Amino acid sequence: MILIGERINGMFRDVARAIRARDPEPIRQLARLQEAAGADYLDVNVGPTAAEPVEAMQWLVRVVQEASDLPLCLDSTNYDAIAAGLELARKPAVINSVYADRPRIERAFPMARKHGAKLIGLCMDAKGIPKNSENRLALAMELVAAAAEYDFPLEDLWIDPLILPVNVAQDHGPEVLETLRQVKILSDPPPKTVIGLSNASQKCVNRSLVDRTFMAMAMCCGLDAAIVNVNDEELMATIATARIILNQDVYADSYLKVFKKRG
Amino acid sequence: MILIGERINGMFRDVARAIRARDPEPIRQLARLQEAAGADYLDVNVGPTAAEPVEAMQWLVRVVQEASDLPLCLDSTNYDAIAAGLELARKPAVINSVYADRPRIERAFPMARKHGAKLIGLCMDAKGIPKNSENRLALAMELVAAAAEYDFPLEDLWIDPLILPVNVAQDHGPEVLETLRQVKILSDPPPKTVIGLSNASQKCVNRSLVDRTFMAMAMCCGLDAAIVNVNDEELMATIATARIILNQDVYADSYLKVFKKRG
Repeated sequence: MILIGERINGMFRDVARAIRARDPEPIRQLARLQEAAGADYLDVNVGPTAAEPVEAMQWLVRVVQEASDLPLCLDSTNYDAIAAGLELARKPAVINSVYADRPRIERAFPMARKHGAKLIGLCMDAKGIPKNSENRLALAMELVAAAAEYDFPLEDLWIDPLILPVNVAQDHGPEVLETLRQVKILSDPPPKTVIGLSNASQKCVNRSLVDRTFMAMAMCCGLDAAIVNVNDEELMATIATARIILNQDVYADSYLKVFKKRG
Repeated sequence: MILIGERINGMFRDVARAIRARDPEPIRQLARLQEAAGADYLDVNVGPTAAEPVEAMQWLVRVVQEASDLPLCLDSTNYDAIAAGLELARKPAVINSVYADRPRIERAFPMARKHGAKLIGLCMDAKGIPKNSENRLALAMELVAAAAEYDFPLEDLWIDPLILPVNVAQDHGPEVLETLRQVKILSDPPPKTVIGLSNASQKCVNRSLVDRTFMAMAMCCGLDAAIVNVNDEELMATIATARIILNQDVYADSYLKVFKKRG
């Protein structure tokens, strides 16, 4: 399971404030905390309201890389900001994200190839997010076809079926889980799968409970990667336990400790 | 989700002691506690060491029915004890269990039909429990064929793929989950599925964590029923949350309270 720490995102008020003030220490602290908790990648997102998003992304990438050697997940709808981040990234990054829309595909795939980056592909197009898994899979298939077109390695394409909050779009839940399962038969080798877990619980009571229950189910459907709150210890314990149940890690009475050490 | 309270079982020391002493109050108390926590059925098992298992089952069924109106899950390898329990049961019961073995099939199915009981069918035969899901499904198919032979309603046959403890038979976990999924395509209508959840965590550290992670995964695979510790509040919260994610219950901010009230 590839874990991407979600916390360095301008949607969080403390991060937005640090970006605005160009105050590096809160960002460095979040990078260190997530690395210590077991993150494999750090998501880096300047947030929807940042002024000068390209320069903000450059600053953020520099600051994060002062505190951590983890590879980055460059998260923006602004491809100039992502391109600027890729130029500065010391290790192959993940581009977050592209969807089934020609102008985006034509920019994102060559950019990913040039930098040896992975690419998160969303099950949506210019019309939005379809509800049922068949239509989500049709969009995933367009991204798989684009990978072939650009000679992009399929295992570096990470399909995100797009979780919606359970309190406003409850009927999407089973469709997202079915999409995770079916993506694996779209190609050989199949693309990887990824979710933005915390979307499931937005504005819900007991967010961690919703997140960890969804996570266990998604892992049961073959999930490869997730953007998560790696500092949610109960979630991390659920992930460690799910890996044991799915026979991906060897059981030991000390398995939780083993998991934390590995991070 | 059909929940069967596991607690009235002679494998627990307090229950074994109460059965030996024919002391009804601890049994009545467990019946009431499980009903209040939301059980749909109460498992009733005199335990492997009970002297006079038939008479012990009769006593146990009478005592449980003094305290609760819930239907029973009569749990024994001794079919004379199950037959005695069925005679006393006030509501249609579940027979726990039969496996793919002709003498057992020939006794269990007619007994279930006579009393309008449901029947738990185990994915094992006289040789034991197979490891991979294909072989588990072959045994489930024998039980489905037996249901047809005895004109027994397929939806009253509850297939149990048999969970083994994750610390001694870790490689069985993914096979059990795959069996739950595939059982649903064996017949039309399909049989129901059931698990004895606590088997997953026997002698593990943090049993509840293992149980509730396994439960979320099993529900994601279409599970219909489970024999569980209904007094494990964290497990019950996970089940309520899984029902929301799978769109089986309507989300409300108060969903946990709603779930408890329904019980």
